[in-house]
Amino acid sequence: MAFDLGSLKWDEKGLISAVFQDWQTGEVLTLAYMNREALEKTLATGKVHVYRRSQGRVMMKGEKSGNVQIVKEVLVDCDADALVMKIEQVGRSACHEGYPSCFFRRLEAGEMKVFQEQVFDPKEVYGR
Amino acid sequence: MAFDLGSLKWDEKGLISAVFQDWQTGEVLTLAYMNREALEKTLATGKVHVYRRSQGRVMMKGEKSGNVQIVKEVLVDCDADALVMKIEQVGRSACHEGYPSCFFRRLEAGEMKVFQEQVFDPKEVYGR
Repeated sequence: MAFDLGSLKWDEKGLISAVFQDWQTGEVLTLAYMNREALEKTLATGKVHVYRRSQGRVMMKGEKSGNVQIVKEVLVDCDADALVMKIEQVGRSACHEGYPSCFFRRLEAGEMKVFQEQVFDPKEVYGR
Repeated sequence: MAFDLGSLKWDEKGLISAVFQDWQTGEVLTLAYMNREALEKTLATGKVHVYRRSQGRVMMKGEKSGNVQIVKEVLVDCDADALVMKIEQVGRSACHEGYPSCFFRRLEAGEMKVFQEQVFDPKEVYGR
């Protein structure tokens, strides 16, 4: 069927969840939110744009760090309320804390441990 | 640091987002929500429990279909408001619509197309 942004199930805040996954390794890099404007810009430019809830605005991923994400494939789930985007990560970090993935910690025997290595120092990239 | 469920950032409805990913292939199978009870049961039993918003209750994934999910690894993101669970999918379907993944559709040249094959007929498993 023809794809219509209106056929997606936007939540009461006008957002949809999107899982960003490395298109080659399958690693899940980030879970973020898109409003209609962010999704339109993402599809139009081929570069991931998200709605940053803490800032109340649409931003291109990597607009400050240069670590942009190039869209390779877009999947839609059964309820049409979540997306998976397979992306090519430019630079080696998807996370504003400088790790390859936002999911850089894991549970190990009841402890939460960092298991990834930092690729950049957030202070140097974002200031303070 | 020791893991404390209270250190996670539960939203205003007491929920956290969880991405379920095949532990071997890396395929993203489902995005679902957990409340504290669902996460506690998941960690205690090693089987995925989710909070089904449409039903307002905690259920074990696969409690009706038999397609349970065995937890292999739990990752926590930078904001502590999302989880990735790497799981072993028992049965060949994670989706109540009978597909291997809930993300069984993708955008192709402006069309939304089903690209996975149905593994079971939902009518037979769940009744109408």
